[in-house]
Amino acid sequence: MKGKFISLEGGEGSGKTTAIAFIEQWLETQNIPYLLTREPGGTPLAEEIRQLVLSPREEKVSDTAELLMMFAARAQHLAEKIQPALNNGIWVISDRFLDSSYVYQGHARGGDISMLDQLSRWVVGDNLPDATLLLDVPVEIGQQRVKARQYQDRLDKETLAFHQKVRDGFLKRADLEPDRVKVIDASATLPSVKTQIESHLVQLSHTWSGKQ
Amino acid sequence: MKGKFISLEGGEGSGKTTAIAFIEQWLETQNIPYLLTREPGGTPLAEEIRQLVLSPREEKVSDTAELLMMFAARAQHLAEKIQPALNNGIWVISDRFLDSSYVYQGHARGGDISMLDQLSRWVVGDNLPDATLLLDVPVEIGQQRVKARQYQDRLDKETLAFHQKVRDGFLKRADLEPDRVKVIDASATLPSVKTQIESHLVQLSHTWSGKQ
Repeated sequence: MKGKFISLEGGEGSGKTTAIAFIEQWLETQNIPYLLTREPGGTPLAEEIRQLVLSPREEKVSDTAELLMMFAARAQHLAEKIQPALNNGIWVISDRFLDSSYVYQGHARGGDISMLDQLSRWVVGDNLPDATLLLDVPVEIGQQRVKARQYQDRLDKETLAFHQKVRDGFLKRADLEPDRVKVIDASATLPSVKTQIESHLVQLSHTWSGKQ
Repeated sequence: MKGKFISLEGGEGSGKTTAIAFIEQWLETQNIPYLLTREPGGTPLAEEIRQLVLSPREEKVSDTAELLMMFAARAQHLAEKIQPALNNGIWVISDRFLDSSYVYQGHARGGDISMLDQLSRWVVGDNLPDATLLLDVPVEIGQQRVKARQYQDRLDKETLAFHQKVRDGFLKRADLEPDRVKVIDASATLPSVKTQIESHLVQLSHTWSGKQ
């Protein structure tokens, strides 16, 4: 039986790393085989594309170029890593996936949503995640968490208004596809966040009979 | 007055390098300011994408990923190099451009032509070359020339049947857009090839009054 595909989404400082560690722990407890991956990236080529997109550079990167690079990396990631794993009955947990493109390149930067829709049809098609866990947190809280980190990439340096657009964009994605995108209140206490996540994992595992 | 935009196209061993050297010499004689560039590549980021696409690698590169990377590099090349030069009255000579994507990723590899059309509308739009010089040569002659070279990239290693598809693909492009794509018989003697190219350059310069 095909594995389940879960993507984690959320703005900077929404607690994705902690959430992923909890999901890994849960899957191990359940004896469910899984693979942890991330976007942009996930294969050697896709990780090289990630480097090109995220590294600070003097050259202004055109919005269209950035969007096409993101979907090139995603095409590679799906074909060479995600689909083979799912077909082998392995669950795939991806730190970011399609919704991040809609939110960062689309809603936050004003990119062409019809272009995103077309790229999504070409590259992702029916291979959407079975569940997308959206870690939602007010921008102020997210930014406080980010400031505590040392390394900041290009996106972390954007303004607060940008991060507000990111949050709004993610919530819009949840409004559009409520069956797939599950909003997690990530400003709650850690035990509460874990409980919310666990309820979705339990639901996914109930429709899955591939446990070893 | 905007500069003229010329692209050079042709299969491996069609004599593009010699043709470009002749075009540069001609433009210098005419005192026409010009910029020589190439695809994939042309800007630091686009050259890095070129490296990702052309370097031999163990990982199989998905056709969609390759196509999107090519158009990402092209979007960057147009926005950051070609259009600024043309707007400053500088002629741009590009070693390969849009037609190579149609031929290599489309005709030769069986890629989705409707996807190419859509990417072309997004990325190139009205910014097509004023003239595309297609150096056409029978595959056997092209391959003899390539074998005399030392370095061979990934495309050079493809089979003869592939190179035949490439030639046919380029000729199809000329059939579809005869006003833009000019077929040069590159199996002729060097003086004849130069004469053919020169006639197109003369024609372009007649509709251009930006000479300094």
